[in-house]
Amino acid sequence: MLTADYKRYRVAFLGFGNVGRALARLLVAKSTELREHYGIEWEITGVATRRMGWRASGEAFDLVTADRIPNQNGFAQWLATARPDVLFETTSLNPETGQPAIDYLKASLQAGTHTITANKAPIVYAYDELNAIANAQRKAFFFEATVLDSAPVFSLFRETLPGVKVRGFSGVFNSTTNVILETMEAGRSFAEGVKMAQELGVAETDPTHDVEGWDSIMKICAVSRVILRRPLLPSEVRREGIRELDPETVQAARTEGRPYKLLSRATVNPDGSVSASVRPERRPLTCVPPWTVGIKLT
Amino acid sequence: MLTADYKRYRVAFLGFGNVGRALARLLVAKSTELREHYGIEWEITGVATRRMGWRASGEAFDLVTADRIPNQNGFAQWLATARPDVLFETTSLNPETGQPAIDYLKASLQAGTHTITANKAPIVYAYDELNAIANAQRKAFFFEATVLDSAPVFSLFRETLPGVKVRGFSGVFNSTTNVILETMEAGRSFAEGVKMAQELGVAETDPTHDVEGWDSIMKICAVSRVILRRPLLPSEVRREGIRELDPETVQAARTEGRPYKLLSRATVNPDGSVSASVRPERRPLTCVPPWTVGIKLT
Repeated sequence: MLTADYKRYRVAFLGFGNVGRALARLLVAKSTELREHYGIEWEITGVATRRMGWRASGEAFDLVTADRIPNQNGFAQWLATARPDVLFETTSLNPETGQPAIDYLKASLQAGTHTITANKAPIVYAYDELNAIANAQRKAFFFEATVLDSAPVFSLFRETLPGVKVRGFSGVFNSTTNVILETMEAGRSFAEGVKMAQELGVAETDPTHDVEGWDSIMKICAVSRVILRRPLLPSEVRREGIRELDPETVQAARTEGRPYKLLSRATVNPDGSVSASVRPERRPLTCVPPWTVGIKLT
Repeated sequence: MLTADYKRYRVAFLGFGNVGRALARLLVAKSTELREHYGIEWEITGVATRRMGWRASGEAFDLVTADRIPNQNGFAQWLATARPDVLFETTSLNPETGQPAIDYLKASLQAGTHTITANKAPIVYAYDELNAIANAQRKAFFFEATVLDSAPVFSLFRETLPGVKVRGFSGVFNSTTNVILETMEAGRSFAEGVKMAQELGVAETDPTHDVEGWDSIMKICAVSRVILRRPLLPSEVRREGIRELDPETVQAARTEGRPYKLLSRATVNPDGSVSASVRPERRPLTCVPPWTVGIKLT
């Protein structure tokens, strides 16, 4: 294959924390495979973070020299300068409104950029609008990393089970609470569980969203919107976190073979509404597969 | 949508046992959805079974009147008369050679028919050839029902994880042995376990293939060929069935929290070869979710 046959993508990272950096490492590691198997090459023309500012250039640049690239005056100028073919958005979650990420994603799609987000809130609050712009522009709008990062939940149903109607789902949607509960089962304190989750790299510095169930709720709402095809707002989900559980209770439950998990559930009711909850539930040991998808063929 | 916009598919069933009949029921149940969402209509022009013979017609016919449709003189005439757009092949397994199913599938694809098989052996013995004909004819060759019927194992990797390299897999690939082992754990005999599996509709009249591990081996070889992209012959898989296990041993293992399962494993070695085995292994209870894609059909 001659170089002329390759499609060269201009790539921009909006947000560049753990997720963005892991993605960049993967792109580097797989660059030969991408070129040889898919005819794809890529170069970075924009990186924006709170610390670094809005770095963008008309020419490709290297991440190690990003601090020498001109700092643009806000998102619009950054996008116009980087002119990316693909934008990866991994800014931090705003569970109340999804902003400013939603506006960024809209502008990116409107500029004719394939747009990929790891941010749950835009799916919960603006899925229809974002899809409509993507369809009108004939660009991809992908969001697979928003739920169960390592497994293709959304594309599983979109690509491989188009004829299946999903009536509900249940599972453990949050790793931090799992680690905290398992640490308490081993006789340690709640605080030690939080520390363990942070050391494992699954918890944020402030684990409140995880512990109180908000992270799970955002995921339930995203899955409900896309896979159940029903809008569901975070305020409509019954919520109970794991703060009330103490090590003694958790240990006793495990000893009895029915440990606590922060279970997420959603079911489509006969009238078409969705009932959903996030709360600690005791599950028999054999029923603890982390993620169980309930499918009803109709 | 006007009727003229619909694509009408001539459909033929080669083999019409439990699987073929369940598929026909699904097609009937989903015919409105297929028409309205996908613009697809279908009609049956061929059915062939050992009992019924080679029924085919130029005109669509109803399954209940299939015995009044002319009985053709073998596969070639049957295919030429039915002229199907889609052929569903669900004949019984020949684990030694995959014949005559392989020849049927080749002829079907060569005739320009989208060809779908639920038969593992053609994947194990003729995957490359069948794929090559399908590609040359620009027709679909699908085989999702060959392994873990209800879950899209092959299309999961083909459609949603194209950039992922799978290095190995493990799991319980056979339901009959699971039911037999669980029945023995409840204090019943091996023979009662077989009967239970037959009543649940998961075991054949002769469960030898399941019990001795051959069913699992055929699945390992199919998954290895398609997902690991490595040919693997049944004779290359280390095999040990569950006949040596008695109820006492099985019950004791369960009581200790580490029950027996007929585990299937395959790993790609550094030199590119595949090491694979099917044998009873004791797994801790929390590791028992049989196959970690947790899809439950309800």
